[in-house]
Amino acid sequence: MHTIDINCDMGESYGAYMIGADEQLFPYITSANIACGLHAGDPGVMRQSVQSALKYGVKIGAHPGLPDIQGFGRRKMDISATEAYDLITYQIGALAAFVQQEGGVLHHVKPHGALYNMAAQSQSLAEAIAQAIYRFDPKLILYGLAGSALIDAGKHIGLTVVNEVFADRTYGDDGQLTSRSDPLALITDTEQAVRQVIHMIQQHSVISTNGNSIPLIADSVCIHGDGQHAVDFVKELKSRLEAEHIRIQPVMQIKS
Amino acid sequence: MHTIDINCDMGESYGAYMIGADEQLFPYITSANIACGLHAGDPGVMRQSVQSALKYGVKIGAHPGLPDIQGFGRRKMDISATEAYDLITYQIGALAAFVQQEGGVLHHVKPHGALYNMAAQSQSLAEAIAQAIYRFDPKLILYGLAGSALIDAGKHIGLTVVNEVFADRTYGDDGQLTSRSDPLALITDTEQAVRQVIHMIQQHSVISTNGNSIPLIADSVCIHGDGQHAVDFVKELKSRLEAEHIRIQPVMQIKS
Amino acid sequence: MHTIDINCDMGESYGAYMIGADEQLFPYITSANIACGLHAGDPGVMRQSVQSALKYGVKIGAHPGLPDIQGFGRRKMDISATEAYDLITYQIGALAAFVQQEGGVLHHVKPHGALYNMAAQSQSLAEAIAQAIYRFDPKLILYGLAGSALIDAGKHIGLTVVNEVFADRTYGDDGQLTSRSDPLALITDTEQAVRQVIHMIQQHSVISTNGNSIPLIADSVCIHGDGQHAVDFVKELKSRLEAEHIRIQPVMQIKS
Amino acid sequence: MHTIDINCDMGESYGAYMIGADEQLFPYITSANIACGLHAGDPGVMRQSVQSALKYGVKIGAHPGLPDIQGFGRRKMDISATEAYDLITYQIGALAAFVQQEGGVLHHVKPHGALYNMAAQSQSLAEAIAQAIYRFDPKLILYGLAGSALIDAGKHIGLTVVNEVFADRTYGDDGQLTSRSDPLALITDTEQAVRQVIHMIQQHSVISTNGNSIPLIADSVCIHGDGQHAVDFVKELKSRLEAEHIRIQPVMQIKS
Repeated sequence: MHTIDINCDMGESYGAYMIGADEQLFPYITSANIACGLHAGDPGVMRQSVQSALKYGVKIGAHPGLPDIQGFGRRKMDISATEAYDLITYQIGALAAFVQQEGGVLHHVKPHGALYNMAAQSQSLAEAIAQAIYRFDPKLILYGLAGSALIDAGKHIGLTVVNEVFADRTYGDDGQLTSRSDPLALITDTEQAVRQVIHMIQQHSVISTNGNSIPLIADSVCIHGDGQHAVDFVKELKSRLEAEHIRIQPVMQIKS
Repeated sequence: MHTIDINCDMGESYGAYMIGADEQLFPYITSANIACGLHAGDPGVMRQSVQSALKYGVKIGAHPGLPDIQGFGRRKMDISATEAYDLITYQIGALAAFVQQEGGVLHHVKPHGALYNMAAQSQSLAEAIAQAIYRFDPKLILYGLAGSALIDAGKHIGLTVVNEVFADRTYGDDGQLTSRSDPLALITDTEQAVRQVIHMIQQHSVISTNGNSIPLIADSVCIHGDGQHAVDFVKELKSRLEAEHIRIQPVMQIKS
Repeated sequence: MHTIDINCDMGESYGAYMIGADEQLFPYITSANIACGLHAGDPGVMRQSVQSALKYGVKIGAHPGLPDIQGFGRRKMDISATEAYDLITYQIGALAAFVQQEGGVLHHVKPHGALYNMAAQSQSLAEAIAQAIYRFDPKLILYGLAGSALIDAGKHIGLTVVNEVFADRTYGDDGQLTSRSDPLALITDTEQAVRQVIHMIQQHSVISTNGNSIPLIADSVCIHGDGQHAVDFVKELKSRLEAEHIRIQPVMQIKS
Repeated sequence: MHTIDINCDMGESYGAYMIGADEQLFPYITSANIACGLHAGDPGVMRQSVQSALKYGVKIGAHPGLPDIQGFGRRKMDISATEAYDLITYQIGALAAFVQQEGGVLHHVKPHGALYNMAAQSQSLAEAIAQAIYRFDPKLILYGLAGSALIDAGKHIGLTVVNEVFADRTYGDDGQLTSRSDPLALITDTEQAVRQVIHMIQQHSVISTNGNSIPLIADSVCIHGDGQHAVDFVKELKSRLEAEHIRIQPVMQIKS
């Protein structure tokens, strides 16, 4: 039987600034990636997001990003591997403190935005990130773009990895996401997005923008929480996955 | 036999900005309060400071402050008790992550600057800070101004507390520090500063600016790391404490 | 004939974070206070807000605040008069640059949030703010809480001042706003809010929470742009002011 | 007769953090590039730097950088041309306000660090920066790396441009600075650095790391203010330039 994890970026509000339909989405997801204060989220939002995840029984992940609130962590910055290591450690620790206070368990780490994309391609950044996570807690699960350098680095150091796929993004022949500057980058049709997810789970492949079947592992599908139709989409996706007898569940930590 | 802990604020550099003679001071202190990124310190400085403390066998404390790099955490901000709880948790966690990676143990927490002063007087802030620390790890030791509201809140919730005294500051009849705006606030004479410390340790009291003897507990003396004569002063202090057979050692965590 | 200016805080979005129904409100106001990047607003939002104000023929004001995005400039900070002078100058200049590029004229300055409240009560802060504005451009108009220390400081140095009143806030016998912690602080009933504004304009007084008539000058009424009913309220207010033959127009700069 | 401008980056301190021997360097330079608060400098430092420049009769330039205090503006960020336009405008305006208050004249603009390097190579960023400056004030002089895309963009839009050269950096056959990662990048010998400057001024060329003579215009030489030997170097350079009868003077704005 096929299984899939549904993850969503959560806790991206900041002070008076509200983003995301977090409370409406929690009932439909299995893993939450909670922003850690450097690209989004503030300490109060982090605590509340941890409390909500525990209330809904959703796995808690740290979602560390580049130090750039104004750019929402989406602008690439030329940081060194050491800086990446330190930024990841700082943010994981900050979130883990709230989890520890609330009696929960930190489950995974997924880099955000530009840091996620940079780590998908740069081996040195990927290794630094994997090392920071492993040295903090080797039981933590690393989320990365399916088949990316970050997944490789995580496996290599001994972390459990989760290959993440996207419902609303297209893929090239290299198995990488099509650039957002490409007019074909986004899938806006719900039916097409749902079918792509089911196809990836059942066929272990994706149809590229060139029409080729590209091998791809789908351990978790990412739902975007700040789109307008996020709630409707996740309901539809969940319903369709159940109809296909695909089990929706989080990835489990290996007991050490 | 009398004992005293010597603590110093460390890791206050930030990016290209260097402050403090950290490497020269580590050999002479027993406890380091490491800045946590919101008023000073950056993730790289935090990691290096943790590594240095471990190298020198100095106890590691978190030194959380107000979110104000430009003001170095010295400008009072009107934060709520909940905001204080969240800010403390965030910063302790961030530092604890580096300590955990390096195989060390987080030993204590000492609020910084304006947050330290606000917590010395406001019961609600003091309780929020004590609660954040206790819920994160009840073995952590709380440093506060000797006899302050923060010390009371720490004791009340069940934390081990450390009454901190200052070598280079004068005290009023209420046992509080004289305001920095008072011309008598600072003790600039080394001999006078050393004698005040020895007096506080041996007599459990301090002579106020009015000439009265005020009861005061001295568990730890704070050395300022960014003054020009910091290194000379701590050498002299250490030598004189030894001459008085006062044992210089950190406060121990209670095993749970 | 009575006249009134309607002002609104604008340009408070920040990066990916959207706040305020700016485009819907511009048609109904005569003066816009545009955030300057330290408590809200970013350089791109500032440029767009200036462009919108010019498009709608609305007077452009700088809305400088405390350096605290996370707290939206609403948390009091213990800054010195010199720091206030420098913060005001920095932010006015930043906004003025966009106005100059677009061929407009900077019309006024209104401090934001905690800085506004601090300047209403502290003579030294009020004087520093007035001096910063006057030394930058003596033709600029200073908005402050009606009857406050900021208004006094502005008059004293030679600035044109605008006494600002609030539709949705109650007043005490001292003519100051009732503290937000008071259960009577906010007026949530539209009819009551509108009537208070009309009363203030026509009677030069306000009825305090104790039922007393308190003298008060109303040069401008502030509309809150991020409330849910902001647009409905300003439409209703404008309609009712017109029915009372109160002319809605900005305050004019004195030609030098 | 040959002439040269000596410029130096100034006002890079930030709150409690001090960088640069500004007061010792002002007597030896003709143009100061003052940081504008986003990568270094704070409003108080900006005001004091403007006051110092006026006291010493040194031309005042804005030195805008990327929004990254922690990275000192040295980490490339993937910003759009529009973001560059807005960042430049914001920072020029903020500095110009202090200049206006003090009765001075803003003379030039020189982008800082990574922004300077990005603008030297990216035509779209260079054009956006030149446009922001021109639209703010077409009399402002634009400093850029000699022969770079930024110089081209400035000329094209109609700004007076200043080709900047470096005493302590080597050049490649393409006339660009050798990358800092190249072991030959830095010239640490004072005599060699001085001779390179004199050669560039008198011969309108530089000897590349490959030994070739590369044409190059030298309108201004940049002195680094935070190096330890900055003051000694600028004294030696000034003395040697005078011995060669090279006149040291700022570039003049064209009257409009």
